[in-house]
Order: sequence, then C-alpha cells, then structure tokens
Amino acid sequence: MNARMLWQDIQKIRAEAPLIHNITNYVVMNTTANALLAIGASPIMAHAVEEVEEIVRIAGGLVINIGTLSPPWIDAMIRAGQEANRRDIPIVLDPVGSGATQLRTATAQRLLREAPPTIIRCNASEIRSLTLAEQCTKGVESVHTSEETLEAARSLSRHCRCVVSMSGATDLIVAGVSTIRVSNGHPMMQRVTGLGCTATALTAAFAAVNSSPFRAAAHAMALMGIAGEMAVELSSGPGSLQVNFLDVLHNIQESDIERRLQMDAA
Amino acid sequence: MNARMLWQDIQKIRAEAPLIHNITNYVVMNTTANALLAIGASPIMAHAVEEVEEIVRIAGGLVINIGTLSPPWIDAMIRAGQEANRRDIPIVLDPVGSGATQLRTATAQRLLREAPPTIIRCNASEIRSLTLAEQCTKGVESVHTSEETLEAARSLSRHCRCVVSMSGATDLIVAGVSTIRVSNGHPMMQRVTGLGCTATALTAAFAAVNSSPFRAAAHAMALMGIAGEMAVELSSGPGSLQVNFLDVLHNIQESDIERRLQMDAA
Amino acid sequence: MNARMLWQDIQKIRAEAPLIHNITNYVVMNTTANALLAIGASPIMAHAVEEVEEIVRIAGGLVINIGTLSPPWIDAMIRAGQEANRRDIPIVLDPVGSGATQLRTATAQRLLREAPPTIIRCNASEIRSLTLAEQCTKGVESVHTSEETLEAARSLSRHCRCVVSMSGATDLIVAGVSTIRVSNGHPMMQRVTGLGCTATALTAAFAAVNSSPFRAAAHAMALMGIAGEMAVELSSGPGSLQVNFLDVLHNIQESDIERRLQMDAA
Repeated sequence: MNARMLWQDIQKIRAEAPLIHNITNYVVMNTTANALLAIGASPIMAHAVEEVEEIVRIAGGLVINIGTLSPPWIDAMIRAGQEANRRDIPIVLDPVGSGATQLRTATAQRLLREAPPTIIRCNASEIRSLTLAEQCTKGVESVHTSEETLEAARSLSRHCRCVVSMSGATDLIVAGVSTIRVSNGHPMMQRVTGLGCTATALTAAFAAVNSSPFRAAAHAMALMGIAGEMAVELSSGPGSLQVNFLDVLHNIQESDIERRLQMDAA
Repeated sequence: MNARMLWQDIQKIRAEAPLIHNITNYVVMNTTANALLAIGASPIMAHAVEEVEEIVRIAGGLVINIGTLSPPWIDAMIRAGQEANRRDIPIVLDPVGSGATQLRTATAQRLLREAPPTIIRCNASEIRSLTLAEQCTKGVESVHTSEETLEAARSLSRHCRCVVSMSGATDLIVAGVSTIRVSNGHPMMQRVTGLGCTATALTAAFAAVNSSPFRAAAHAMALMGIAGEMAVELSSGPGSLQVNFLDVLHNIQESDIERRLQMDAA
Repeated sequence: MNARMLWQDIQKIRAEAPLIHNITNYVVMNTTANALLAIGASPIMAHAVEEVEEIVRIAGGLVINIGTLSPPWIDAMIRAGQEANRRDIPIVLDPVGSGATQLRTATAQRLLREAPPTIIRCNASEIRSLTLAEQCTKGVESVHTSEETLEAARSLSRHCRCVVSMSGATDLIVAGVSTIRVSNGHPMMQRVTGLGCTATALTAAFAAVNSSPFRAAAHAMALMGIAGEMAVELSSGPGSLQVNFLDVLHNIQESDIERRLQMDAA
C-alpha cells in the first residue's frame, strides 16, 4: 500500500509538473534542478529580494537551503518563506551545516521562528545543533546516527510543529509522536555531492502534490533511496552514479518501487 | 549548402577558439562552459563590475543570461554590454524567465534599451513578455508555441534591430521579415536543465566566427538540435543525455550534419 | 618509491577524510566537491565573511580560487587566509585568470602579500602575470608553456617562500631550486572545464595529510594526470571524461600508479 501511494505521488508530479522555487546553494543548483526535471517537476532558482515573493506565489513548493549562505541570501530566504507562509505553500528547509558555524545555526534558528517550514530535511548533526546546541565538528557531514537523534527530532517536530525528515543509514521521518523509517539507499551516495540537497528538492516536489507533509517527506526519502540503489547497480563509481541517478529517476516504474521499498511506520 | 555553411562555422570555431565572455546564471555555468569547450571555443565567466569591461574587450562574443539575477549582476551586464556595443562585439541576450517577475521583465527591457543585443535567444513566453506585456505563469518554461509567437518575434526583431532566435518544437530564427525554421531536436532535451542556456552560449560562439548574426543564430540552433538527437540515441535518460551531448558536440562530423539537418529559410 | 609515497598519501586521505574549505568559483564548485569526495576527502564551500574563519579553523586545508571574483569574496579570501596562516593550515591559491584583468592580478598579488599561500597552483600565463607583469590575452587559458616559465616560477617560489605547482603538457612543481616534473595527463582534459581547479582542490587534500607541501603538490598533479589518462581511455569525449574521471579517482589502485607514474625530481 505504501508503494502504491508513493507511485501515485510520482504520477501526480509527472502529470502536474509542480513549479518548485529553490533558494539553494551554489554547489547543487545544477544537480537539484536536474533531479526535479528528471522526476517531472519544474525547477526555478531565484534569490533576489526584488523577485522572490513574486516567484514563490506561483510555486507549488519552496526549498530553502543554507549551504552557501551570505546575508543578502538570508534576507531573500526570510521574505520568500514569509510569503509562502501567507499563501500556504509548503516550505522545505535544509539547514546545511547548522552547528558548524554560528551564522548557519543562527540562520536556521531564525528561519524556524520567522518563516516556519513545513518540513525540515537534514542530517542528525544538524538536528542536534538546533535542539541540543551541540557543535558539529565535521563541516557539512553528520557525526551522529539518526537513531540516537530520534528524541531530538521528536522534540524539534513538536516545538516547530513541522515534519522532521532526517537522513542516515536509516532515514527517520518524524511528525510529533509518529515515525516512519526508510531503509533504502546505498553508502556510495555519500560520495556524490548534493544528494542530500536533492532529497530536499524532491521533498518539495512531493509536498506540492501530497497534502500530508509527513507522507510527502517519507515518499521523497524512499524514492531517493530506491533510485540510489538502482543507480549504484549500474555504476562503477560516484561519477557514473550521479548520471545514472537522474536516468533512474526519469525511468522509474511502479514495479521498481514495489520490489524495493523498505518503509515502516511506527 | 546549409550543412556546408554550418560545418564551415564549426571548423572556424575549432580553429580560432573564440573567447566567449559569459555573464550567466549559477545553474548553468558549468554546463555552458563545458559545451563551449566541447565545440572548440574558450569560455570565461566573469561578473564583477570591476573587470567585465576588460574581459569583454578581449572576447569574440558576450553572453548575457538573466537566469539568477540580482542588482550587482545587472550593473555588470549593462557595463559589459555597453563596452561590447562600443567595440562591435556581438551580444547574445537570454532573457530567462522574462515575464515571470517584474525584475526579470524590467531588466530584459533595460538591456534592450541600454546595451542592445545582436541576438535575443529565448522561448516564446519570454518574447511575449517583451512585446505583448504578457505575464508568463510557469516560471522559466514556455507556455506558448513558437509558431503562434512568430508575429511578436518579428515585431521585436524590427523594433530592436536584432535577430530573434526562439526555441520550440520548431525553432524560429527571425531577422526582420526573414525567417529560418530549424526542426531538429528531441523532447527529452527539456528534461536537462540549461540546454536552452547552452544554445545561447553556442550562439555566441557562432556569432564570433560568422559575420551574419542571422546565420550564426540558425547554425547554433541546428547544431544544438542535431547534437541533441544524436545524444538521445545514445542515452537512457536525461542524466546520460547531458553527458553524451558534450561527447557528440566534441566529435560531430560533417556527415552527421548533412544527414540530419532540417533547416528551411522562408 | 615515488609511487609508494603517492599511494600512502591517498590511503591517508581515504582514512582521515580531511575537511577541505573551498572559497572557489561558481563554475567548478560542484566538480571540485565531487572530486574531493571521490578521493575520500570532505569538502565544504563557504564564502561569507561572517563564517569563513570558523570554517577554516576546523579544516585540514584551504583552497582560494579567484575564478569568478567579486569584492565581497575577496574580503572572505583574505580573512580565511589570514586565519589559516595563524593556525598553520595549508593554503592552496589558484590565481585563475591572473593577467587577464587588473582585478585578478591585483587580487592575486594582494593574497600573496596579506595571506601568503603554502602552494600556488596555476598555469604558466598566471605565473608570468605575477612575476613578469605580462598581460595574458586569452582569458583563463595559458598562452605559454611551463618549461619557458620555469625561471619565473623559481623566482616566485623564492620570493613568496612557497611551492609553485604549474600545470602544462609537463607539470612543473617548484620549491626554491628544486623541481619535480610530472608528465602524466592527456590533452582532452583541457576540454573539460574546471580540471585545473580540481587539481587545486586535490592539492589541498594532499597538503592536509603530507607535511611537505612540495611532495603534496607533486602527488596531486601526478594523481590528476594518471586518473585523467585512465579516464580518457574509458571515454568517447569530454562529457564522459568528466564522469569517468570521478569513477577512476574513487577506484584507483596502487598498481595503477606504479604502472603509469611519470615523475622526475631534478
């Protein structure tokens, strides 16, 4: 039944081609635009304070990703987020590197307060920086597992009234006391830059077509994991993985999902 | 005869390696630099007002692409464009998303006035935003066909005394009352981000070696379409299409063009 | 013996996953992040003056690449570089396009004075702009060979008390009167944008694990050349070369290095 629901969302994305507004980092703009196109969505990147409100108004979802932050971009994130809030457009926040610097932690916290996201899509260390005030010491990679961060994720979800979608060997998607675990994926995916950011972008595409942010976040992580597994089987390293991942997203079938999906609600 | 003329331009690009100055969007910088290298040109990306005039002076062509706009970049576009105008260096303008926001429409209009381009390379919705004051409602993708926008393109070409190169299922290249139609290409190309921007960059490379902007624009669109078709035949999706497209650009032969070219002047 | 030492460095990078802080150009951010991941390092891109000092403190190496320069980024480069100097964290400077504009030449010179690098990784024309005040007239590509620039590189190395790593048909790595020549590589690598910048990023990864910047720079250039040769053999053009290069970096074995290494100290 989960596979069917995920497949229905994919079909809806392909049919409706929701416009996803991305205020994201320089490293992954090309990658995430291509992933959104491959799954059937329509990406737009725009970051000028002069235009982000106009853009977000015509979008089905907004991605805010703080991976290469600077003050003018923060202003744009706040403005776009507040306009999305006013119009009930789902926001997916990726607090990349929160915990690594004060600027990133403070910006993530400010976004939680001033432009509350529908879904936080992140790794365990980022969650901990937002709830336990822990310092992450390894740049943008997580030094904690998702399971040991589950309580922090629950607390963040309750406090911010949002879904928390935490990637790891097992992805944990948390909404208050409810949790979905997704065990798809492959370790080689960590050797390709921006696949976490791609998960964030795809989460926005699912949130644009599924009125449950909890289901949308879980479907996005499951699709990421399944497409990643399938792409790894076709690849001889992280270079070809990046290429094959896009091909798999474009070609994925319901039977692929039925055969591979490892998703449990608890 | 058309195939021969297109092939001569490609040989000239390979022999002369014209330097193409790109003031373009973050999403496609890597992609368009690689496409320019693959066809034999030499790309440089530079956007600081402190250096754009110096760069454009040594360039054979200037690309101005407004896909991820912000005020400091607009200043650089104007300055570089005016210096190109003074030195008779061809400018190719890609008004990405004109019609989607006031900033983009106003910037495209300002560039037409203050730093008139040699060629406008765009889609149908962008043309309409510049001539019919129509609002585009789907981000950076066109919601109109090129044929239904032909009159608007002619009007824009006359008014701005420039070539208008409009991509679509059939590409229309317009110079006053003259029109060239190019029917090469493949729908999967729309699933790769930045192939429109790549067409713009290649147009600048052709304009650097061919004194007729009308022919240069048509040759670029034909090469895009032919290379796209050939790359699709080698690809299993948009990921491999992006890769194969560069390989095909690098390896293309006169016989490929002779066999595939679908270009009609009217 | 050289192959063994290079292999030991690669093993150290894979084991320690040094964090490399990149303040680099927009064109290559994705490419260089992927190359660092493929060899086993951990990249972070950050350019805000508000956070660069915090980031560089936790890094094993700092890349400063001036390929798409603007004043706010220059401030960040200076600050990050000075903090790296205070903490003895190796800096690899890539003065992309120095000689092409006053902004680039002046910025490279200012960085040499105010935040002295451990290693300058560049091409021959860039060296000449820094020592002979020569104007480069072809954008970001070199118009000189490395051999004819050897004396200038020696002078720069002595004057700046740093290693100079100059790419060319033969790469020359210079530390005072000592020179290492690396003859690996393939001409098709010049048709992929950002492979020079990738060499710079990998140089920082080697400098993070090898206390001799001279050896680190030579090892990085040798690995680039060997991986490039191997990737070209698997590729049909520059598109697939970019992909295969990452796969080869990820999979490279000691035997590959033993069989192919062409490195001579003089």
